[in-house]
Amino acid sequence: MAEVVVLRWGHRRRDERLTTHVALTARAFNASGLILTDVEDNELVQTIKKLVSEWGGTFFIRMGIPWRVAIEEWKARGWVIVHLTAYGENIQQSDVLERIRLLEQNIVVIVGSRKVPDEFFSSEVADFNVAIGNQPHSECSSLAVFLDRFYRGRALSQTFKNAKLEITPQKHGKKVIRHSAS
Amino acid sequence: MAEVVVLRWGHRRRDERLTTHVALTARAFNASGLILTDVEDNELVQTIKKLVSEWGGTFFIRMGIPWRVAIEEWKARGWVIVHLTAYGENIQQSDVLERIRLLEQNIVVIVGSRKVPDEFFSSEVADFNVAIGNQPHSECSSLAVFLDRFYRGRALSQTFKNAKLEITPQKHGKKVIRHSAS
Repeated sequence: MAEVVVLRWGHRRRDERLTTHVALTARAFNASGLILTDVEDNELVQTIKKLVSEWGGTFFIRMGIPWRVAIEEWKARGWVIVHLTAYGENIQQSDVLERIRLLEQNIVVIVGSRKVPDEFFSSEVADFNVAIGNQPHSECSSLAVFLDRFYRGRALSQTFKNAKLEITPQKHGKKVIRHSAS
Repeated sequence: MAEVVVLRWGHRRRDERLTTHVALTARAFNASGLILTDVEDNELVQTIKKLVSEWGGTFFIRMGIPWRVAIEEWKARGWVIVHLTAYGENIQQSDVLERIRLLEQNIVVIVGSRKVPDEFFSSEVADFNVAIGNQPHSECSSLAVFLDRFYRGRALSQTFKNAKLEITPQKHGKKVIRHSAS
């Protein structure tokens, strides 16, 4: 199964919760990690690390690297760059997802905000510009639907290794199992 | 096609952008409107109204109504209440979505935050508790994936009436058409 890493561009301190939601969405939908480019935010990193230590898995987070350097680095490794943007090819109305899948490569998904650099839209940066619909909405939503479709829904049935907390799904009420350290 | 209205519980001023993203996600994925319960936030309403006037459609927004009143009102009209929560039945691993579809009713989707009242999980409030995976992530992501699956992807190919702005999807670059007033 192809691996996905999420590159978050345009994080600002006042957006801490939004970027946290992007990171948690990435993890929950089977991405391997998050690269927070151009800025550092240790509070955010601690929030994510704490959550990963409780809920399991191996989600990584890196920060502070300039976006150009990050893109060059992952391209050099053969990863395909997918930029999620309302301006791109519609995931429902075009065959863009099939074309991405056919490459059978690992993917860097760029998740920006409203004012991303124009270069993100060029073929020098993005191999694909993918629109989760051509309406303005949310980078969290775009990332979630892209990964849900890319992994054909299976991301949502994965289990996370070394979890201390695990939910047992209920029709009504809440049930959380707390695993003791092994 | 069944109609969906989104009920947002637990909005705080510091979360303005998150609730904005929830509202825009609701609109982009074919919900009819947003009910912001228990609080008022005129700034948020203006943000959404401005966006709707530019991008089209008839998305409504109501606010300030207590959540119990809202739930009772919509239940009395025969709408089914679906609460999105990580503790609920897994949308991928259970048949919960099929059971909801079989009812062929309109739906109120409750989108909360971490500390929703316990009553939301009870059968007095929620007809269904649905988990978009049983991991913590984001109410935007949950809403997007629920609506994407509920509408079998077709929400993303809808067009919005009376739009002043319309994106023409591009492989690279950005193209927006500005319609003159008719």
